[in-house]
Amino acid sequence: MYTVIVSAQVKPDMVDQFLEVMAENSRASRREEPGCLRFDVHRDNNDPNHFILYELYADERAFAEEHRAAPHFEKWRAASAELLEPGGQVNTFATPAFPGDLPEARS
Amino acid sequence: MYTVIVSAQVKPDMVDQFLEVMAENSRASRREEPGCLRFDVHRDNNDPNHFILYELYADERAFAEEHRAAPHFEKWRAASAELLEPGGQVNTFATPAFPGDLPEARS
Repeated sequence: MYTVIVSAQVKPDMVDQFLEVMAENSRASRREEPGCLRFDVHRDNNDPNHFILYELYADERAFAEEHRAAPHFEKWRAASAELLEPGGQVNTFATPAFPGDLPEARS
Repeated sequence: MYTVIVSAQVKPDMVDQFLEVMAENSRASRREEPGCLRFDVHRDNNDPNHFILYELYADERAFAEEHRAAPHFEKWRAASAELLEPGGQVNTFATPAFPGDLPEARS
């Protein structure tokens, strides 16, 4: 499995638009990409303009090739420059330490 | 739901011990706490001493009262000072932006 955790600092006047684009991106990723196992969108309780994405993929290829080639990702990527603060996106790439513990490992 | 995302910077010579304590903490949380819906442990691909925990709880009470009162949490808390770099733990508390999208919301 391959994990992507994104910290996204949204411009305060762009939060509604961010939520709209991200709802579509997260739902389409789950619906249309067999290798996208999970795509959770969270809002920071201490900063309403800060969001965290938790994405699980079957493997790196499912992220780097399938996800990044999908039309919903391209729509998000194109919008993100307008929606996020400059330098406001930080991606962390990770691997489950105990992969057998994840429900997705058994499906 | 209530989300806890933890960034943990582990002392390089303590990674094996961290993994042992965290395997027990994450598994006991899921097994023994009805309000702990998910507890995923990830290792940063770019820093083998950096870990990210992704924890989902039914509500804030399940985290603040049940999880923090559990014996496995106390064991982790007591060990963490020895296992982590000084100031090496950062907690982010968050809320699902689209809670109905999460599989846990439907269970």
